[in-house]
Amino acid sequence: MRELAAQPGACAINTATLGFQAPLTDVIDAVARAGFGGIAPWRREVEGQDVGAIARRIREAGLKVPGYCRSTYIPATDRAGFLANIEANRRAIADAATLGAASFVMVVGGLPAGSKDIAAARAQVAEGTALLLAHGKAHGVRIALEPLHPVYAADRSCLSLVSEALAICDAIEGKADDPWLGVCLDVYHIWWDPGRGAAIARAGAERRIFGFHVCDWLVPTEDVLNDRGMMGDGVIDVPQIRREAEAAGYTGFIEVEIFSARNWWKRPIGETLAVCRERLVSAT
Amino acid sequence: MRELAAQPGACAINTATLGFQAPLTDVIDAVARAGFGGIAPWRREVEGQDVGAIARRIREAGLKVPGYCRSTYIPATDRAGFLANIEANRRAIADAATLGAASFVMVVGGLPAGSKDIAAARAQVAEGTALLLAHGKAHGVRIALEPLHPVYAADRSCLSLVSEALAICDAIEGKADDPWLGVCLDVYHIWWDPGRGAAIARAGAERRIFGFHVCDWLVPTEDVLNDRGMMGDGVIDVPQIRREAEAAGYTGFIEVEIFSARNWWKRPIGETLAVCRERLVSAT
Repeated sequence: MRELAAQPGACAINTATLGFQAPLTDVIDAVARAGFGGIAPWRREVEGQDVGAIARRIREAGLKVPGYCRSTYIPATDRAGFLANIEANRRAIADAATLGAASFVMVVGGLPAGSKDIAAARAQVAEGTALLLAHGKAHGVRIALEPLHPVYAADRSCLSLVSEALAICDAIEGKADDPWLGVCLDVYHIWWDPGRGAAIARAGAERRIFGFHVCDWLVPTEDVLNDRGMMGDGVIDVPQIRREAEAAGYTGFIEVEIFSARNWWKRPIGETLAVCRERLVSAT
Repeated sequence: MRELAAQPGACAINTATLGFQAPLTDVIDAVARAGFGGIAPWRREVEGQDVGAIARRIREAGLKVPGYCRSTYIPATDRAGFLANIEANRRAIADAATLGAASFVMVVGGLPAGSKDIAAARAQVAEGTALLLAHGKAHGVRIALEPLHPVYAADRSCLSLVSEALAICDAIEGKADDPWLGVCLDVYHIWWDPGRGAAIARAGAERRIFGFHVCDWLVPTEDVLNDRGMMGDGVIDVPQIRREAEAAGYTGFIEVEIFSARNWWKRPIGETLAVCRERLVSAT
C-alpha cells in the first residue's frame, strides 16, 4: 500500500467536503495550498460558468481532476424523460472533457416516481450507461459507475454493489485492455458488503477502478445523506479497503468526499483541509 | 401464490407493529378478534412475566406464534461478553419453547464497541449461531437468522444478505432434510438486493425459509429505524417478493412488522389491525 504521508499529491479533495461555502476559485487555491494533488468539482459549481477558465485555473494551481460529479439520474417514467436525462449527461461529459477529468462519476438514480420496478430501473441504467460510454469515448472521458449504499436504492441509486457495476461493465464493454467503463469505489457505500473484497480484486484485475473515495460511517448516524464522518471517526476500516484496491493495482487518487452538514461543513475550509491531510496519513 | 383474502389465518401480526401501547393480553385478544392466525410477541413483553400463562392465553385465543423476537446481539468486545450474550439467548430460546414459537428470530448484532473488524463480528455470529442451534434443537425451537438492511451493519446486524445467512446455515448444519437453522425474510431488508431472487429460491429449495415479514420502504424515509411504512405506501414490490418465497415452497405465516413512530404507533390498535388486514390482501 502506498505511503500517503510521502505522497500528498496522490490525494484529492472532492469539493462537496467543503460544503460549497466558498467560490470554486477560492477552493481551488486552498486545495492546492494545502498540498493536495487533485480536486473533484461538482456540476453545481461548474455549469453556467466559463468551464475553460475553470479548467485553466485548476491546471495553473497544479491540480488534476480525478472525477467530475455527478451524472443526472438516468431512470425516468417515460422514454422522453430517459432521453432528456441522457442528453443532460452528454453535456456534462463535454464539460468533464474540458476540465480534463479522468472520469465522469455516475450516480445512476433510483426508482422513477411511482415505480416499484427496480429491475426496470436497472435496465434503464444499463442502456443509458452504454449510450454515455460511447459519448465519453468520443470526448476522451472515462465513465465511472459509483455503486451507492443500499439505503439509497429507492431514491438515488438502484446500483448498490460493486459486483453489480462490474456486471454492467462486462455486459457493455466486455473484456478490454484499456477499459473506458469502470467503477468508482467509495468506502461509505461498500464497507459492509461481504462480497467487496472479491469484487475489488476483480475490478482491479480488469483495470476498472477509476476512483477511490474515502470518509467514514459514524455511529450513530443522524442522517444517512449528510452525516458522514472524517476518516478515523467512524467504524469503517478504511486502510483495509484501500489495501484491497491498491493490492488489486489501483494507483489513482485517494479522494476525500465527506457530506457533513452538522460538522465539517460548518468549519473554515482551511481547517477541514488540514484535518483531511492528517487523517489521510493516520486513518486511511 | 396464496390468496390471502381467503386465508386470513395465514397472516400474523408482529406486536412491534402496534407500538407496545397496550398490555400483551389485550393485544392477543385484539389480534385474534381481527381474524389473524398468528402473533409474534417481543421479549420485552414476555420476560419477567408468567410465560406459561402468556402461552395459554395465545393458544386459547386460537393463535399460533410464528417467531419470537429477538436475539440478544452476539458480538462482544471480549469472550466473557460473548458468552453472556449466548446465555441470554439460551434463556430466550427456553421462553420461545414455552410460547410454542415456530422459530427464534435472530437479529445478530453489529460491531462491538470500538471495533472496526466486521469479519471478526461475523465470525462471532457464526460461532454463536452454532451454539444456539444446539440449544434450539434441545428445546424444539428452530433458529431463524434475519439478515438486516446494510444501513444497520454497524450497530444492529453485520449479517446483511440472505446469501450470507444461507452460507452460515451451510457451514453449521450442512444439507438437512428437516433443517433447524434457516432464515427469516423481511422485505424491508432485502428488497433492494439484486441477488435476492436467487437466494430465496435456494433458501426455499433447502426448506430454510422460517419466516416472512412485510412492511414497506417509504420515500422519503425520515428515520431508517422507526419510519417504516404499511404495505402499499412505499416502493417495495411486496407481492413480487412473496411470490418468490411461495414459488420456492414457503407456506408459513405472512407476518406484518412495521416500526412506525410517527404514524401507525400513534393510532388505535384496532384501526392499525384493520388496515393491516386490508393491505395484506390489496398490497402484499
